[in-house]
Amino acid sequence: MSFVLAAVHYGYTISIAVGSMSDALDRSLLTNQIDAVDMIRLLPAVNDDHGGVIVDVQEPMDSKVFVGALRASMSQWKHEGKKGVWIKLPIGLANLIEIVVKEGFWYHHAEPNYLMLVYWIPETICTIPANATHRVGVGAIVLTENREMLVVQEKSGGFRGLGIWKIPTGVVDEGEDICAAAVREVKEETGIDAEFIEVVAFRQTHKAFFEKSDFFFLCFLRPLSFNIQRQELEIEAAQWMALPEFAAQPIAQKSGLFKRIIDLCLVKLDKNYAGFSPVSVSSSDDKPPYLYMNTRDLHQSSHTTTSQL
Amino acid sequence: MSFVLAAVHYGYTISIAVGSMSDALDRSLLTNQIDAVDMIRLLPAVNDDHGGVIVDVQEPMDSKVFVGALRASMSQWKHEGKKGVWIKLPIGLANLIEIVVKEGFWYHHAEPNYLMLVYWIPETICTIPANATHRVGVGAIVLTENREMLVVQEKSGGFRGLGIWKIPTGVVDEGEDICAAAVREVKEETGIDAEFIEVVAFRQTHKAFFEKSDFFFLCFLRPLSFNIQRQELEIEAAQWMALPEFAAQPIAQKSGLFKRIIDLCLVKLDKNYAGFSPVSVSSSDDKPPYLYMNTRDLHQSSHTTTSQL
Repeated sequence: MSFVLAAVHYGYTISIAVGSMSDALDRSLLTNQIDAVDMIRLLPAVNDDHGGVIVDVQEPMDSKVFVGALRASMSQWKHEGKKGVWIKLPIGLANLIEIVVKEGFWYHHAEPNYLMLVYWIPETICTIPANATHRVGVGAIVLTENREMLVVQEKSGGFRGLGIWKIPTGVVDEGEDICAAAVREVKEETGIDAEFIEVVAFRQTHKAFFEKSDFFFLCFLRPLSFNIQRQELEIEAAQWMALPEFAAQPIAQKSGLFKRIIDLCLVKLDKNYAGFSPVSVSSSDDKPPYLYMNTRDLHQSSHTTTSQL
Repeated sequence: MSFVLAAVHYGYTISIAVGSMSDALDRSLLTNQIDAVDMIRLLPAVNDDHGGVIVDVQEPMDSKVFVGALRASMSQWKHEGKKGVWIKLPIGLANLIEIVVKEGFWYHHAEPNYLMLVYWIPETICTIPANATHRVGVGAIVLTENREMLVVQEKSGGFRGLGIWKIPTGVVDEGEDICAAAVREVKEETGIDAEFIEVVAFRQTHKAFFEKSDFFFLCFLRPLSFNIQRQELEIEAAQWMALPEFAAQPIAQKSGLFKRIIDLCLVKLDKNYAGFSPVSVSSSDDKPPYLYMNTRDLHQSSHTTTSQL
């Protein structure tokens, strides 16, 4: 038992088909036997936080060695009462996917350079968490105090060539906070530095991209610079535009979203609209995640609330 | 040229290695030649909205036939000036993945039963959109008018066995609106019917699950029934709990999120807090997507705003 455990720990073991000790003393014979060694290699695995194991195959493996190792490992993990088994295969090892699938695994998710497969060992209900379901975009409303809005015309996408002025928008990068994404997109597309104030609305749409859904966060930013430096690759034109001119565009009469953006600009200029601002919720030693909330209402009510409990 | 186009249209074509017309008139010889046919099958593809093509391989194919078809198709698509090429392979055709990868494709995303691969033909910058980056969860704050909150203890997860009372939470299903998800989770876990009022805050965390990020929407709901029917599989206990009792839990002193939930309950009971309510933005003939916004502030300001443009 300790032998097998050690094997798991070190990632593999070699079960040599030795004959007798006297045979083993014959150096040449031993060499032959090692050549004909019966490799029962176990896959290197680390435990996850939910009673499962994660296998991160990084080196090429002969497919016969791999299938043997996988079966031996599965048997070992079942014996140990493991639950989910995750196998991460880099794209260079695409030849091993079929083997893993034939052993009953299914796909969990894929990124450009790897595929993650998964298997649920127990007979209880599978609690493998679902894959990511949403893409996330931001739109930046950047308004000056004299009621001008930062607008762009794009070189690609649905509005290409239509002369439509829109707010800067973009996709949130992997691991990026939406407040950071809004500031970055404004800077990238127009060269304008801006300070993130709050999320003023968000939209959820479905089947936006294959089966995936989409969140689009409308953000309000205060400009910190005013000299536009257009990004030439994606942006056809960029300017500060008076709000009535933006609202006079035909699209603003048709599109519910354009109408809402204009409404939001007007109430923001009135200072009558409270969106959600990011506040840190410190719960770990890492950089705390942001909780976006209506801090204006919360602060206005705060002296009342303490006396209420 | 029309031959090849027809081939694309019907999905495949057969290039018969015919000899001469006189040979062809010999019935038995023709039969032999068809047996030894040189299949140049093109993959069936539909155009996407961005100048690319999508191949949805549904039937098993011999790997040699497949590699020939893929190369002939790629050549054809290059000739036609296509951009992105998407190949969707069901899990049963995992044997074809290696071939597609060797032709230069990379993974885009995977769901349990298929893998999507992609290739960018032009020499311009690749504009293939990124895969989904976020998982989405909801937490439901269900408060009665006499200041009692719906709370549960879970049978699994980080709080398992710790006797911690928490709000009902869950994962948003694929294609589900967050307002619907909050109502569903409350019903599933506790049997309580509730009406969605608004999103009162949301949190974005990174690397929540492998490389993926996570949105957690805190929602406020009004209860429509009060008789709890606990879901036995996941929920250890469920009850209505006086707010001071919820706040007195040790976790509520430590966790920033628990503190914020209590703050939000108090200001909601005060009716001083405006969250984001879902409003339809009709932009297409489908069920319109929801835009979540602070409708209270918007309505309060609305007669001012119209006069401003």
